[in-house]
Amino acid sequence: MSENAPLVCLLHGPDQPGLVAKVSGWIFERGGNIVHADQHRDLEEGIFFQRVEWIPAGDAAVEEAAFREFAGALGMNPSVASPARRTRVALFVSKADHCFHDIALRWKAGEYACDIVAVVSNHQVLEEASRHYGLPFHHVPINATTKPVAEAAQLALLRDLDVELVVLARYMQVLSDDFLSKFARPVINIHHSFLPAFAGGRPYHQAHTRGVKLIGATAHYATAVLDDGPIIQQDVARVTHQHEVNDLIRKGRDLEKIVLAQAVRWHLEHRVLVYGNKTVVFD
Amino acid sequence: MSENAPLVCLLHGPDQPGLVAKVSGWIFERGGNIVHADQHRDLEEGIFFQRVEWIPAGDAAVEEAAFREFAGALGMNPSVASPARRTRVALFVSKADHCFHDIALRWKAGEYACDIVAVVSNHQVLEEASRHYGLPFHHVPINATTKPVAEAAQLALLRDLDVELVVLARYMQVLSDDFLSKFARPVINIHHSFLPAFAGGRPYHQAHTRGVKLIGATAHYATAVLDDGPIIQQDVARVTHQHEVNDLIRKGRDLEKIVLAQAVRWHLEHRVLVYGNKTVVFD
Amino acid sequence: MSENAPLVCLLHGPDQPGLVAKVSGWIFERGGNIVHADQHRDLEEGIFFQRVEWIPAGDAAVEEAAFREFAGALGMNPSVASPARRTRVALFVSKADHCFHDIALRWKAGEYACDIVAVVSNHQVLEEASRHYGLPFHHVPINATTKPVAEAAQLALLRDLDVELVVLARYMQVLSDDFLSKFARPVINIHHSFLPAFAGGRPYHQAHTRGVKLIGATAHYATAVLDDGPIIQQDVARVTHQHEVNDLIRKGRDLEKIVLAQAVRWHLEHRVLVYGNKTVVFD
Amino acid sequence: MSENAPLVCLLHGPDQPGLVAKVSGWIFERGGNIVHADQHRDLEEGIFFQRVEWIPAGDAAVEEAAFREFAGALGMNPSVASPARRTRVALFVSKADHCFHDIALRWKAGEYACDIVAVVSNHQVLEEASRHYGLPFHHVPINATTKPVAEAAQLALLRDLDVELVVLARYMQVLSDDFLSKFARPVINIHHSFLPAFAGGRPYHQAHTRGVKLIGATAHYATAVLDDGPIIQQDVARVTHQHEVNDLIRKGRDLEKIVLAQAVRWHLEHRVLVYGNKTVVFD
Repeated sequence: MSENAPLVCLLHGPDQPGLVAKVSGWIFERGGNIVHADQHRDLEEGIFFQRVEWIPAGDAAVEEAAFREFAGALGMNPSVASPARRTRVALFVSKADHCFHDIALRWKAGEYACDIVAVVSNHQVLEEASRHYGLPFHHVPINATTKPVAEAAQLALLRDLDVELVVLARYMQVLSDDFLSKFARPVINIHHSFLPAFAGGRPYHQAHTRGVKLIGATAHYATAVLDDGPIIQQDVARVTHQHEVNDLIRKGRDLEKIVLAQAVRWHLEHRVLVYGNKTVVFD
Repeated sequence: MSENAPLVCLLHGPDQPGLVAKVSGWIFERGGNIVHADQHRDLEEGIFFQRVEWIPAGDAAVEEAAFREFAGALGMNPSVASPARRTRVALFVSKADHCFHDIALRWKAGEYACDIVAVVSNHQVLEEASRHYGLPFHHVPINATTKPVAEAAQLALLRDLDVELVVLARYMQVLSDDFLSKFARPVINIHHSFLPAFAGGRPYHQAHTRGVKLIGATAHYATAVLDDGPIIQQDVARVTHQHEVNDLIRKGRDLEKIVLAQAVRWHLEHRVLVYGNKTVVFD
Repeated sequence: MSENAPLVCLLHGPDQPGLVAKVSGWIFERGGNIVHADQHRDLEEGIFFQRVEWIPAGDAAVEEAAFREFAGALGMNPSVASPARRTRVALFVSKADHCFHDIALRWKAGEYACDIVAVVSNHQVLEEASRHYGLPFHHVPINATTKPVAEAAQLALLRDLDVELVVLARYMQVLSDDFLSKFARPVINIHHSFLPAFAGGRPYHQAHTRGVKLIGATAHYATAVLDDGPIIQQDVARVTHQHEVNDLIRKGRDLEKIVLAQAVRWHLEHRVLVYGNKTVVFD
Repeated sequence: MSENAPLVCLLHGPDQPGLVAKVSGWIFERGGNIVHADQHRDLEEGIFFQRVEWIPAGDAAVEEAAFREFAGALGMNPSVASPARRTRVALFVSKADHCFHDIALRWKAGEYACDIVAVVSNHQVLEEASRHYGLPFHHVPINATTKPVAEAAQLALLRDLDVELVVLARYMQVLSDDFLSKFARPVINIHHSFLPAFAGGRPYHQAHTRGVKLIGATAHYATAVLDDGPIIQQDVARVTHQHEVNDLIRKGRDLEKIVLAQAVRWHLEHRVLVYGNKTVVFD
């Protein structure tokens, strides 16, 4: 096999005959070798989705630019990534630390091909832990009055650091529509329920009141509508009448960690395509 | 051990010190031997719940009556059952047959300590299959106009047959409040979603539109509020973007069978206590 | 889209650059349209695997023959199937009926694109049930002495009926190496444990003795070595100290049904490739 | 309710009529109030098991001593614990840090009612991380020659610190029979397979070679026979042909963390009774 690093492309656009042949043919003619390729057709919507990972024969930057042009000419919307460019991530946290430690430890263990360029928090609780991991910590206090100013400060920071992905690791503030539209890049949130059940506040209390037999967690892209964005991953755990709200919260922490970690991994490996309010996950 | 058949009692009432000792002491003093005992306290509500299964030393009917009196004197609400009395069950079905066959086969295999005394349907599709299993089939057509008359006929049938449990095995009609209050005995329904998500009609279509990554099924006692009764059992199965609505429906059938079968089993084994809008399941 | 029925091909052979492009290019040039395509590379072994499903533009038989020739020229081992040819299946059963009913009901419900051309049993217990489903039943008694004769009779039957797949639905006899090599077509077995744990007889008893906290079931292709063939699907269920062997057996029945049903479905949909002692399942 | 802290007792011994009544009666007569009680009978072996948690009316030490005497007189083997006495735990680690961090973080978050009084390792990799958590680190190098000396040093340390539980958090040395019999207190190990499948070394490699569709992890008490002790908890995760050994190792880390964490929690909450080579877990 080639010694080159692979390129990964996520494509989507109007379905048409021969797309698989055209894309794989283009790569083959330029001497590339496909390592993985997966595609999906939404027959109702007439959309074609593809993830293709290949070892280019020539210079990665040249091949990447050429592929973008080729895909655009096919009417496809391409997003090409190279492992040489590690995604720049900001973690937003509040006081709860389980998802924070989980992601930081996975990052330290080399599980994630990303640079965590900032930890942003409305509290100072995780400042020392951040520094211990070698992660720059930014305290941006926020309340109802200061929210516009605080969000402006957050946006300036994200821009300065060229952050490409924000991960809300149990960040207990709702991001405004204005923030999301100005940031205009992906934001992954972990909601501590099996959405669409128990959207909004205190979902474990809601679940306990309803008497469900399973609790859940949902990782999704944040959108203007609270807890309603495209779902990336969900999982559940069994509970019984013996579990009080505090038990649900404790059991839920393990769920939240696993679900958020998986969603972040898939995003960083360029496996997730969003369309409408859904995702295609090429696992 | 004694050769006698066991008695099972489900108890609940205001919590008070010494209840476990009093109940087990009473049984021991009368020569009974406890096979299983499990209890639960809802500390918020101050309610005590217990399931106790014992081999009585004396005549079962005498012991049962004595226990009822004893438990009542403790301020407890007792429900005593004996395997000698098999629960009389009516299955309500429409056209979908997967839950129907699943329950009928479990019953034939001896998994359920019940007599299925009637299959009631608004269609004739399952008439021959019912007869093949040796189950009496009753066709009660129903539409918006005839609903009161049809429900009256169903109620008369249930009363004539002394039915103690109705199982809605994908019965596609909503039972009226009037029916439920007149029947006044438990009705178990299987809803094809992870309640409270996707209550109401066409839940798999709703799930597909929302783009969830897990589909669910929920067995619950039917109440006046649609899809809102006390939940007995829930389970989920993983789905992806590749699954169209028909795939969800197909995968859902397996979920529905397993979840309904488990709920019916627990009910028939006298393991389920309802309080408020929740259940305690002594598994 | 074309009105034609799709063709499905499973390919495998030595890895080489451009295989995806060559296969998809060939299909595109002949006017076919790829509906699904999935591939896998075993990098250690240097083997390429692909499943491709496409709507041919021309006559299916012509396209199929042409594809076989094309794939052979690439050094690939192709297996092309068309839904127009339903797989001919024989079910082998003994006395336990849960997997038998499960498969028969799925077949009746149209879940399986196959014809069940024979039910073969060493007992007569399921004769009447087979007839009720409209399935031809063959009683072939077998014991240590008559085994060679009985297997010869089974083989003659399978040949007469041109059976393409044997499903051992809790058939309690071990097929001899001689039988397997003479039949020379796939045989799917369901073993009632999480293989390789508890191979051989009475696996639930073994599991109970060992005190495991999960029981399993494994669907695999039968090979000359008992319970050692390529695994297609596995699943588990939770058990506790409260479960006696009979409870494991009862809970296991549900597992066995689900696991065998899934393996048979994947096989019939031409999603399973065997290599060495493993499977690639293009799900 | 009383302001006193609860006592927890695990009892086992020869089954006899009236045990539930006698134990609960004794507690009630001394003014105690049972919070939870659960029991199990092994009918084959004729053994009775009980876990009872109660709020004593009087002085905890007095009640505890009295209960021990009472239970002994019944022929029962009692083990009484009080939350006032936090279990003293030693963590044994090597280089892999995922279970180490997981347990340390749960301990810091207050999930575990224990004191981690030592981290013992045959490597120095986790020394700094231990100190950061405030945990005393002991480096005890070990090789084939020095094993007896090293184990003697470990035993001396455990005795000095009055360690009540050793947790092998991916400690890559086999403890000798001599060590186990001299320590004579519980040792919990996490094995990275679904035991009894793939005991011994490199279980993920074994699993990959066998082509299983699920990988597992097993937490068990260590005994003289490697990977054969009483199982406390097990869980599995789904894998496919796409997963190489490194993927199994990565996915396995999450399993190992969850399974070990749950086993340690149950042990610390006095929910696990060992008998023969099995456990009763009162969850």
